[in-house]
Amino acid sequence: VGSSLEGHVTPIRGGVSLDMMRMNRVLAIHPQDLDAVVQPGVTRKELNAALKGTGLFFPVDPGADASLGGMAATRASGTNAVRYGTMKDAVLGLEAVLADGRIIRTGGRTKKSSAGYDLTRLLVGSEGTLGIITELTLRLHGLPEAISAAVCAFPGVEAAVTTVIETIQMGLPVARIEFLDEAQIAACNAYSKLDLAIAPTLFLEFHGSDTAVAEQAETFGEIARDHGATGFDWAAREEDRNRLWAARHDAYWAAKAASPGAGVYVTDACVPISRLAECLLETRADIDASPLTGMMVGHVGDGNFHVVLLIDPNSEADAREVERLTARIAERALAMDGTVTGEHGVGLGKMRFMRAEHGPALDAMAEIKRALDPLNILNPGKIVEIN
Amino acid sequence: VGSSLEGHVTPIRGGVSLDMMRMNRVLAIHPQDLDAVVQPGVTRKELNAALKGTGLFFPVDPGADASLGGMAATRASGTNAVRYGTMKDAVLGLEAVLADGRIIRTGGRTKKSSAGYDLTRLLVGSEGTLGIITELTLRLHGLPEAISAAVCAFPGVEAAVTTVIETIQMGLPVARIEFLDEAQIAACNAYSKLDLAIAPTLFLEFHGSDTAVAEQAETFGEIARDHGATGFDWAAREEDRNRLWAARHDAYWAAKAASPGAGVYVTDACVPISRLAECLLETRADIDASPLTGMMVGHVGDGNFHVVLLIDPNSEADAREVERLTARIAERALAMDGTVTGEHGVGLGKMRFMRAEHGPALDAMAEIKRALDPLNILNPGKIVEIN
Repeated sequence: VGSSLEGHVTPIRGGVSLDMMRMNRVLAIHPQDLDAVVQPGVTRKELNAALKGTGLFFPVDPGADASLGGMAATRASGTNAVRYGTMKDAVLGLEAVLADGRIIRTGGRTKKSSAGYDLTRLLVGSEGTLGIITELTLRLHGLPEAISAAVCAFPGVEAAVTTVIETIQMGLPVARIEFLDEAQIAACNAYSKLDLAIAPTLFLEFHGSDTAVAEQAETFGEIARDHGATGFDWAAREEDRNRLWAARHDAYWAAKAASPGAGVYVTDACVPISRLAECLLETRADIDASPLTGMMVGHVGDGNFHVVLLIDPNSEADAREVERLTARIAERALAMDGTVTGEHGVGLGKMRFMRAEHGPALDAMAEIKRALDPLNILNPGKIVEIN
Repeated sequence: VGSSLEGHVTPIRGGVSLDMMRMNRVLAIHPQDLDAVVQPGVTRKELNAALKGTGLFFPVDPGADASLGGMAATRASGTNAVRYGTMKDAVLGLEAVLADGRIIRTGGRTKKSSAGYDLTRLLVGSEGTLGIITELTLRLHGLPEAISAAVCAFPGVEAAVTTVIETIQMGLPVARIEFLDEAQIAACNAYSKLDLAIAPTLFLEFHGSDTAVAEQAETFGEIARDHGATGFDWAAREEDRNRLWAARHDAYWAAKAASPGAGVYVTDACVPISRLAECLLETRADIDASPLTGMMVGHVGDGNFHVVLLIDPNSEADAREVERLTARIAERALAMDGTVTGEHGVGLGKMRFMRAEHGPALDAMAEIKRALDPLNILNPGKIVEIN
């Protein structure tokens, strides 16, 4: 769900956009080193198809089949970041074209280095404002021997989130742990033909050896039942797992289908996990008090959640209400030591919160932007305004 | 082993140094969020002592009880980076004083964010050249339920490294996997009163539940025996593990003790793991052809290794030979897609290789340095020269 879908298009000054989708070659796969070198237009599913037979996979999964260049530019993540990290962790090195046409290569193929400034991480998440990414070296992971997925329902949001906190805190290496609220479950049931209980729900996945996966599932089950979880549904067969995760990834479409003709606006906040239950409950109260309908989904192992708001695309009043609600969500995230965007990026929509989130650090960002793109030709007006 | 020992002292222009060791308070521990906020002079052992009773620990372990500020400034790592990452992964956010006195806060307490440039990762590893780190928010991990350590000997360097590659490739979540060559094992036997076979050796550690640790150890044992490993010695008791790792961490002192009165110079290269066996063998040939004595140790799960060279501190010829050997090691690492420093940082010694490693990206580093420290007052002459 989100802006990484459009990340492969980089606007440059004068209304021109660069579309990188034709740079779509997998340049190298190094199975011994667990890395691959790709052009930016390769999508994550294309890369995983190219990895077939190697025993390896590329884990970052924002749901959509986004281009890897776009995912890097927006520092995308998704459902299994809780185990495998985000694009910040996945990109070992890259090639980029700077504003004046110079081509630089950053990082490399080693797992670590202390040789100077981390330009790789500076470019990842820079949304095309510092350079155009033309090649990526990506970290791969071994396909787990066994995968098991589960769904369970909770008596309330707090019970679900407390279960997540205890799971993370005891170091259980859960591969995915996703929250869906009652409204979202109802929409998913209708859209994906499921019959889940209408309750705050966690979707989970465990990766590892057969015994490790079984043990993780058992340990999680104990924690969850302590917090009143019911309706455990385990899916070890690939078919059942795929159906489950398809439903999760179709949450956006399920929301859309719940109100035919409606537009959809998706928020994206992230808070320390200790504040997450409070944050979700206050946000739910906001939605309930609003004329708009909203559903909540979250990558709760990371404290990241989205509200999927249904709007009339032709209504000025709805547009104003979206602006009001997103501001409340952003301000609440910041008040709770969080961030206004966990994974979708700044784009245009979050520009108004950058000063509140970063304070004087925003000026340091402007100084870096001015140093690398003094004429402000690369995606001008994004992340930080320079004059 | 290395420069992170001195990382807490930041030279500023005019020969003045800033010593941060009196900023030594642990400011906050957030057990639910698995993070802690510390001042830069807190050492990693002090932080772990403060975490006692929380069930959490701070994993980055360069051997020495370095300050966390120094470890961040040099992007330090060490023996368990293969499982828990380096300081790049451990620092969630920081406070820094810029060259003009402005104080900025970067990152935060959330596990992820897509809100703008990653100034946290830019400052981590910047060796005090872009700002003085005055506070760190660090990611913690749950103490594993069980820990098991092992030593085993191999018929050759290639057999040991192939074992490492297969272990990593199958996704075995080994917590430490360290290589010591024959010369280093001999020195460790003498210094730490061990009786290990004089052979290329791996030291390992597994973290997890009781069953997970047992299973990992068994799987590793199968791989290792396939490559001729012998003399397995398992240490599940804390006392035995501590003795083993004390010996590994005392490798530097063992080397020094092997030649009383000698000085020690430590190199630090890192290559893709597929090139590691070749790199170690060629480096061993270099040492054997040199008048100097050298021992090799490596964080081989990451492709990172050190040569511990024994020198006469008063000999000009030895100094020249060190310079020649370190240049050969650095150039070989670069020719193999590696880096001239895996974890010790650039300092003065690696300045001469920065252009070869980074090419035009070094100019981008200079532009960032000039933008953030135009008067060149922060640790001038390190990482990149500006005029």
